[in-house]
Amino acid sequence: MATVTRVDKRTYSAINPTSIFTSCSFHDSVVLVSYLVLLLSSSTITPSFGVSGVGEESGSYPKILRDEAVARLHQLGRVSDGDGYLERTFMSPAALRAGNLIREWMEDAGLRTWVDCLGNVHGRVEGRNASAEALLMGSHLDTVVDGGKFDGALGIISVLSALKVLKVNGKLGELSRPVEVIAFSDEEGVRYQSTFLGSAAVAGILPVSALKISDKSDVTIEDALKKNSIEITEEHLLQLKYDPKSVWGYVEIHIEQGPVLEWVGFPLAVVKGIAGQTRIKVTMRGSQGHAGTVPMSMRRDPMAAAAEAIYSLESLCKSPQDFLSFDGQCKSFSMESLSASLVCTVGEISTWPSASNVIPGQARSSPHDTVKFDNQPKGDDMGREAVVYEFSNQVYQICDRRSVSCTIDRKHDAGAAICDSELSSKLKSAAYIGLKRMTGAAIEDEIPVLMSGAGHDAMALSHLTKVGMLFVRCRGGVSHSPEEHVLDDDVWASGLAILAFIETQL
Amino acid sequence: MATVTRVDKRTYSAINPTSIFTSCSFHDSVVLVSYLVLLLSSSTITPSFGVSGVGEESGSYPKILRDEAVARLHQLGRVSDGDGYLERTFMSPAALRAGNLIREWMEDAGLRTWVDCLGNVHGRVEGRNASAEALLMGSHLDTVVDGGKFDGALGIISVLSALKVLKVNGKLGELSRPVEVIAFSDEEGVRYQSTFLGSAAVAGILPVSALKISDKSDVTIEDALKKNSIEITEEHLLQLKYDPKSVWGYVEIHIEQGPVLEWVGFPLAVVKGIAGQTRIKVTMRGSQGHAGTVPMSMRRDPMAAAAEAIYSLESLCKSPQDFLSFDGQCKSFSMESLSASLVCTVGEISTWPSASNVIPGQARSSPHDTVKFDNQPKGDDMGREAVVYEFSNQVYQICDRRSVSCTIDRKHDAGAAICDSELSSKLKSAAYIGLKRMTGAAIEDEIPVLMSGAGHDAMALSHLTKVGMLFVRCRGGVSHSPEEHVLDDDVWASGLAILAFIETQL
Repeated sequence: MATVTRVDKRTYSAINPTSIFTSCSFHDSVVLVSYLVLLLSSSTITPSFGVSGVGEESGSYPKILRDEAVARLHQLGRVSDGDGYLERTFMSPAALRAGNLIREWMEDAGLRTWVDCLGNVHGRVEGRNASAEALLMGSHLDTVVDGGKFDGALGIISVLSALKVLKVNGKLGELSRPVEVIAFSDEEGVRYQSTFLGSAAVAGILPVSALKISDKSDVTIEDALKKNSIEITEEHLLQLKYDPKSVWGYVEIHIEQGPVLEWVGFPLAVVKGIAGQTRIKVTMRGSQGHAGTVPMSMRRDPMAAAAEAIYSLESLCKSPQDFLSFDGQCKSFSMESLSASLVCTVGEISTWPSASNVIPGQARSSPHDTVKFDNQPKGDDMGREAVVYEFSNQVYQICDRRSVSCTIDRKHDAGAAICDSELSSKLKSAAYIGLKRMTGAAIEDEIPVLMSGAGHDAMALSHLTKVGMLFVRCRGGVSHSPEEHVLDDDVWASGLAILAFIETQL
Repeated sequence: MATVTRVDKRTYSAINPTSIFTSCSFHDSVVLVSYLVLLLSSSTITPSFGVSGVGEESGSYPKILRDEAVARLHQLGRVSDGDGYLERTFMSPAALRAGNLIREWMEDAGLRTWVDCLGNVHGRVEGRNASAEALLMGSHLDTVVDGGKFDGALGIISVLSALKVLKVNGKLGELSRPVEVIAFSDEEGVRYQSTFLGSAAVAGILPVSALKISDKSDVTIEDALKKNSIEITEEHLLQLKYDPKSVWGYVEIHIEQGPVLEWVGFPLAVVKGIAGQTRIKVTMRGSQGHAGTVPMSMRRDPMAAAAEAIYSLESLCKSPQDFLSFDGQCKSFSMESLSASLVCTVGEISTWPSASNVIPGQARSSPHDTVKFDNQPKGDDMGREAVVYEFSNQVYQICDRRSVSCTIDRKHDAGAAICDSELSSKLKSAAYIGLKRMTGAAIEDEIPVLMSGAGHDAMALSHLTKVGMLFVRCRGGVSHSPEEHVLDDDVWASGLAILAFIETQL
């Protein structure tokens, strides 16, 4: 039998500098430093939540919910377009193979399956009342480049494992409402730089113009689908939108992608909301020339301008309070919360013509700004907007001073999303029940309630229906990396929790 | 008949802030500003040196030395691996086609031709005394990515045109020594990041280990040659080296790639020396992670580290005097000269995994430092060394502070080279004679004597024999760009000058 480390909730708050816990109101630099030190040494922390020797008879189904689910995670993690690393992007060959595999597992769980015209893979069981509002569940089947095996995949596989347990127990037909699992075709946005292609279509917020977006090889979304024998028209896309009246809610399981659960030694958390995010592409154009002959004072070098802009962005996002100033009207977002939660990243950069002895004529970068969410979602979107405005101003000033032309394209905007309190409450109870089945004992600690800094398909679905999310602990908080890892027992815990949640629909 | 604008030599000095002219001793900020302003408006300056209506009868051969040479430059400029831009790299399909075309033109000029085992194209005429020391001439047939039509090509085509005139006049057999033209296979170093592959082999300074260097696709030089049916062994490479006793000297014509000749309104200059250069590759490794979840304070982001390093490099190279301090022993180079002539460039950068929502795990950049040459070549190499040392220190400090690991590889080092005074004097006289034939009048202005900030094959050849160079004016000083341009009449002037030079060998 496992034991759960007792963690004093006041300690939760004291170790958390970024307002991730809803109860947190403590933001100072001392806390920040201790957080940093603890997380840097996180790989030496032994998770205190472990279970062994519990069989089907206790209702914990380790063979399906742990062993088979873990084996499937590893199997899916080998389905890759990359040689020696994991990469599955929208409609890539590996993404199609992954979709087929997931479809098999859906059928194995007793679901009726189909693939829609944006490549989303659906599996549905009608239960006792096919006309009732459906419970949607799922996550994404795509990955980043050199990504991990659990991001997206865990959410699909855990839910399918839980439904398989119901099928094995002959209870699938007893569900009071239809349950539909969707493996979304694009959440990461790697290929088209516009996240949530799959879930946005289902939620009805994907504009028809999106079909004309091109990837780096000038292949449009429309063409990528056509290449795989999927004909899509504007009408087809509009038909993908689910009728809100036909849907009861959307629930997603996902790895935390942050370090809090590992630190507090707990496998699961309920998600309170998802931070908004903005993706920006900056293109700078200067004067191409010979690296050996053009004097430093006469250069219009976009690479140097980009370096200055990236360096400035980092300073801005580390200390937004040093750069932003607003009058009374705009103080509705908390500067303190913003400076504790803001993250900004430049993940991609390229130059043209990209030769060491040529001053580049052009530099492009794709900064990705995310402002984590606070109690006031409206206020927080405003904080992010203020940062984007300030960054844009800084870029224009840098370009002006250097006689470099620049364009700033906002490639993606997603407002902060709040999870539904009813669903969150049900998920919290389900987590208790699942963990109790796993440990054989009541859980005395409160289930953590976290904010998500990463975007999820639930953000898109929140435009269609109420959403709820469960987070699962991942090692070191590392994600978007081959180092991403979830303990086998935590996979099991997530399956048990979602099983308990689905059982509320019996 | 053309006229040459009379330019007061005192004005030359006063407008030149970068010590490019050997006579220059004037360095102040006012001059720098005027230089800058004037050059920024250089596209509006009408070159004052123009000629028309001079025929073969006057010894100026416009049909061969201007019209045909210009047509060949444009023809060669269309031989590209790029779609819509010019790119010819070492042993690429376009480089091979270019070599074949040049070989045809060599044969048209009456030369015996062959291709050696590093892809250099040779054309030779023995003259009256096949055992006399040979005059080597030439330039490179490769280009940068999105390069211009004149860089390298002009040096090959002008010399071939001049030899064709001698052939037409029946004088090719009267040369007192063999004359050999070499179109070198690699000067830009785009494919293998190691310049002068072709000329270094002829000069005997290419180490046999170079054959194992790989390009971005992991194709070694050895394999690239083999793919084109050229078998190369270490012995073959060593045999490529010319016996210094068999060579009299090397002469190269090249576009200036800088703005001075256009500013002073003169088509030709004699080169006094070539600046040394160092190429460095910096690789930074940090901690890959999710862009939305890892707090700013916990990141080990190599992209941000690279941006800071590039920004620092620019500051260092704009004002090295603010960063370098030396004791008495190291003052043999002039800080004033260094700060006026130093140029540093980062032309390439890449990140891994290169996705906008992933904090990169790795960033690579290839800075390219060049210190222009002064009166003391030894001292100047020392100045460049001091800058590389300071930059390396800055990079290590940035990486230490950010807990990012970094490695610095010196990919290429070339010391400053001085042109031979005897050859320079003969080239200066030849330029006078050529311009006189073109204008029909004596040239009263002194031929400018410039330093080259760009590296040239003459740098490698200087390890084998004495070298001399002529520079030809190019529009706006722009090179390594499709905007690179040389006036038809300046092509003519270069052909006439080299013809007059070769005639000294009759």
